Amino acid sequence: MTNEEKALALHKEWQGKINITPKCQVKSRESLALAYTPGVAEPCKIIAEDKKAAYRYTIKSNTILVVSDGSAVLGLGNIGPYAAMPVMEGKAVLFKEFGGVNAFPICLDTQDTEEIIKIVKAIAPGVGGINLEDISAPRCFEIEERLKKELSIPVFHDDQHGTAIVVLAGIINALKVTGKKKESCSVVVNGAGSAGIAISKLLLSYGFTDVVMCDKSGILSKSSDNLNWMQRNMMEVTNLSGKTGNLADAMRDADIFVGVSAPNIVTKEMVASMKQDSILFAMANPVPEIMPDVAKAAGARIVGTGRSDFPNQINNVVAFPGIFKGALEGHASQITEEMKLAAALAIAGLVAEEDLNEDNIMPQPFDSAVAEAVSQAVKAHIR
Amino acid sequence: MTNEEKALALHKEWQGKINITPKCQVKSRESLALAYTPGVAEPCKIIAEDKKAAYRYTIKSNTILVVSDGSAVLGLGNIGPYAAMPVMEGKAVLFKEFGGVNAFPICLDTQDTEEIIKIVKAIAPGVGGINLEDISAPRCFEIEERLKKELSIPVFHDDQHGTAIVVLAGIINALKVTGKKKESCSVVVNGAGSAGIAISKLLLSYGFTDVVMCDKSGILSKSSDNLNWMQRNMMEVTNLSGKTGNLADAMRDADIFVGVSAPNIVTKEMVASMKQDSILFAMANPVPEIMPDVAKAAGARIVGTGRSDFPNQINNVVAFPGIFKGALEGHASQITEEMKLAAALAIAGLVAEEDLNEDNIMPQPFDSAVAEAVSQAVKAHIR
Repeated sequence: MTNEEKALALHKEWQGKINITPKCQVKSRESLALAYTPGVAEPCKIIAEDKKAAYRYTIKSNTILVVSDGSAVLGLGNIGPYAAMPVMEGKAVLFKEFGGVNAFPICLDTQDTEEIIKIVKAIAPGVGGINLEDISAPRCFEIEERLKKELSIPVFHDDQHGTAIVVLAGIINALKVTGKKKESCSVVVNGAGSAGIAISKLLLSYGFTDVVMCDKSGILSKSSDNLNWMQRNMMEVTNLSGKTGNLADAMRDADIFVGVSAPNIVTKEMVASMKQDSILFAMANPVPEIMPDVAKAAGARIVGTGRSDFPNQINNVVAFPGIFKGALEGHASQITEEMKLAAALAIAGLVAEEDLNEDNIMPQPFDSAVAEAVSQAVKAHIR
Repeated sequence: MTNEEKALALHKEWQGKINITPKCQVKSRESLALAYTPGVAEPCKIIAEDKKAAYRYTIKSNTILVVSDGSAVLGLGNIGPYAAMPVMEGKAVLFKEFGGVNAFPICLDTQDTEEIIKIVKAIAPGVGGINLEDISAPRCFEIEERLKKELSIPVFHDDQHGTAIVVLAGIINALKVTGKKKESCSVVVNGAGSAGIAISKLLLSYGFTDVVMCDKSGILSKSSDNLNWMQRNMMEVTNLSGKTGNLADAMRDADIFVGVSAPNIVTKEMVASMKQDSILFAMANPVPEIMPDVAKAAGARIVGTGRSDFPNQINNVVAFPGIFKGALEGHASQITEEMKLAAALAIAGLVAEEDLNEDNIMPQPFDSAVAEAVSQAVKAHIR
């Protein structure tokens, strides 16, 4: 049996990867009267007077929704809300197993931006946070921005910010290993969708100044055609020297390459043209932009991928469970830029100085200390 | 500590009455690769080709949403979506404990009929059914009707149909005890909201012909003012002789009284004016329309209430868990009139002939055979 066949057989056996399980008894007259009518009226009356009391008496304290419209699922693309469910259920499992957070998957039967905003707002009262997932760019930017403004619970698009946080964490440690300084590093981000844009933004927030974004048509600059509104906004803060050309031109003399793009598009010549002690995060999945051994042979000092079978796995799972755990525990109303930076620093800090080396810049995803450290960092920045 | 204080303290301890729990492992590299990326892509691809496959590979096979807008919660009225959550969580617990059905509560931050319809349609792809709850009349009728038409999964407003099914079940057994015939019985239903209307409809479906509805202003007839559109529709099938007057007028010479109304509004004189061997279901909660001992002393033969501390408890919990259990197991696209009648007969049939008497017309709510019998009856009527 191949792994694909095994995965399919297991999904058939599970018939859904999550259960809803009661925390209370209702199978006697007495217990039913406490958990349901008439006793249940008591917390209802208190919450009716003060919405905030929902955190004390309901699932709002520890439950989020994982919301997708199925428009950009894994590498499968726009497969719609029915086919997106196995991924969203999986995400719910990860939230619980890694962060202790209850997450329920909602796949929406619409891809209209305004409708999605309206619907998510309408279904939000019962929960303490919204994790947006696998929504295509540039719609995801407006959906997230508007929901952040119009809701008073955290809204977090993991494809953007989860990815950006783990990339920054890895880069923080890669700088330590190579001795490079963020102020003088040039960074190339290949892929100008939700992840690439969020990575670029967070690197700039952290203090990088020289970031150039590329996509299939080469370097993104003010003179590029066909930029969406968010990419155009990014031209105010990236590629300030107005470079043009293709990916090879972008990578020449760069210190850091971050790929959230496509398999095998980085050549050994491109790597050889980078500055000394170059850092490459080749995160296309399952086949990276360049294989680690090829990149190393061409002169790269540190290579990370999305894969668990190479060193330096750059995996969102070290970020999102702890982020929502902390946000929920602190009743946060937003995930702020400070929280994201603090989360990246916390993740980076989990690799002790003495263990840090070219092949060990990221904490292990299965280490239960990770979510705890991230949640503490997030909680410390709730205002 | 009073029961109210105890209920509140428990709700504070629980901080929400349900958990989301994984059915699968993800805490090793191998298991993560099967339940999440890359293995999860396999069921996604199959469902993308055939939506129906969602029943084989996702939570759709055994999960529903409990949806409310908080507009008519218990006896508390329009307390809104935040305050409604403890009730909806409780409902989710009952679905799991009694029917083995996973149910997640969604409280909507809108009370606009069209918006509710749009939102429920949009969040439905992932689940196998929708249980509407505590939505005020007459909006609940249009919301349910439209959703039934526009969705291909069961939509069931429990306040209407759950109540109607258990009332019919009780009446079926009360007829056996009293020897009355449905064709010749006159029935008064007091309360013309969602429950009263659904009860009247189901009694007519079952074969009763003489049903008169009342509300605060007395008997509903074609000449009544201020009827909503659904009440006006009901005038085509109830009160065919065009009675007018107050509740006392309605109850004179009636065989059966069903109250889903207000405490203590039925007097002993009214009961005394009914036909011999009268049957009263006084379901106002927690204080019934008339106390059972008073009704019995005034001549009633059978009295049921919503309460567990009197005989003949008329409790929805014997209906809704089994109904959705059966509907989900059979991948039903609707809960039809036939299924509701079959469910009522199944519930009635759970009281063996030899155990049937004035004080024992309903099965015990905590008997696990109930949901199984109801689900089998529902499944047998899936077309």
